Amino acid sequence: MNAREALEISRKVKENVKKSIKKIEDKGVNVGMGKDGTPTKKIDKVAEDAALEILKEYDVKIVSEEIGVVGDGDITVALDPIDGTFNASRDIPIYCTSLCFSKSKYFRDVFLGYVYNLAVDVEYYANNYAYKNGKKIEVSDESSIYCNAIVYYPKKDYGFRRIRIFGSAALELCFVADGSVDCFIDLRGKNGFLRIYDVAAGAYIAKRANAIVTDLEGNSLDYKQFTMEERLHIIAANRKLHEKLVKLIK
Amino acid sequence: MNAREALEISRKVKENVKKSIKKIEDKGVNVGMGKDGTPTKKIDKVAEDAALEILKEYDVKIVSEEIGVVGDGDITVALDPIDGTFNASRDIPIYCTSLCFSKSKYFRDVFLGYVYNLAVDVEYYANNYAYKNGKKIEVSDESSIYCNAIVYYPKKDYGFRRIRIFGSAALELCFVADGSVDCFIDLRGKNGFLRIYDVAAGAYIAKRANAIVTDLEGNSLDYKQFTMEERLHIIAANRKLHEKLVKLIK
Repeated sequence: MNAREALEISRKVKENVKKSIKKIEDKGVNVGMGKDGTPTKKIDKVAEDAALEILKEYDVKIVSEEIGVVGDGDITVALDPIDGTFNASRDIPIYCTSLCFSKSKYFRDVFLGYVYNLAVDVEYYANNYAYKNGKKIEVSDESSIYCNAIVYYPKKDYGFRRIRIFGSAALELCFVADGSVDCFIDLRGKNGFLRIYDVAAGAYIAKRANAIVTDLEGNSLDYKQFTMEERLHIIAANRKLHEKLVKLIK
Repeated sequence: MNAREALEISRKVKENVKKSIKKIEDKGVNVGMGKDGTPTKKIDKVAEDAALEILKEYDVKIVSEEIGVVGDGDITVALDPIDGTFNASRDIPIYCTSLCFSKSKYFRDVFLGYVYNLAVDVEYYANNYAYKNGKKIEVSDESSIYCNAIVYYPKKDYGFRRIRIFGSAALELCFVADGSVDCFIDLRGKNGFLRIYDVAAGAYIAKRANAIVTDLEGNSLDYKQFTMEERLHIIAANRKLHEKLVKLIK
């Protein structure tokens, strides 16, 4: 499978997800317990079923929020059918389908990241370069800490100009990728909060848009694994700002 | 002028604003200095011109971000042509036109609040009751601090379940009004940060959806004035939660 094929599959997946969630009433109702250990919302279940309906036709291994790990192909796909469930279930228009394809179980071997804002039909993807609706994108060149930051959650006043928290890590990393915001920082949890399916696609898109994307110590994500167990802290920004942020947060 | 007329005027204004910003390139370019003392972005200027084109046909006094106070009618209109300029200039789909009509210069005499999300065409308004796309809305009944909160900016860990910061106070107050989030808190500035045109409409919509909307001490907004000078702190939530929040934040 190459990046072109992975992109085609991603587009089929998001189309099926989009169609599936249109008819749902009571999107936010709990319908069980996910493999990630949190309650499964109806919209997540319906969207995951729709995504798997497409993905099961391919020889891939899938790591996904509700169902856990399925399949045993050589290509691993980190899938988040709906990233931003809270927003989606309230019609707040910031939620997406996110897919990330790797040739191994490591982030190092990712060859396609795909993020699609379902509420307003905006598509981000990256293979060698990163694109928003087909146009090449790049991170901002803001190097001051007095910048526009997405931060979950600031532990003190770091001196940012603006802080935003939109509630979809995948999309927010794309906002870094296209320069809409200057950095994305997730400090939650002692050993991280985010899962690989939350961030792999967005992180790869940001990376291909010239962001540096690391954990809080500044270590690359290369050896982060596509498993249900992996948890991540994230700092993503252009090189200059990233360097300052790692020092600031340490 | 009654609420029905004010609603019709508001709809004309948002239509003209929506049309005007469609064609803009370089939405975020600075084009001068606003009466609020911050640089005027191109999108704000274009949107305000479009709003004033409609409003000048009526005998009203307008309080608006860029132009300041114009007109001398008995009815005062707090106008924010674009609330959420940061998002609008980046195509992040959370920004709105906001209008609030009062029979005097005080919040006490408001008779219509109007907020329209321009990115996804969602309309909120309130006269006696509050509505989202024509359907009556009401605040959530969550009474625990472990709730979904919008907070600019938490000074410590208050124990909220989720914190979101979407970047449009007018819309965020409507998210409280329709129960999407449980509370909105703005702690910024020693004497407040928000202006009356940022929050009057949203605050009125939240109030009519059964939220309690006050400053940090729990005082009603009734005597807040529709002037460029007025600054506000805000706590908005259902009655039970509001009571806890005021104690918590004091």
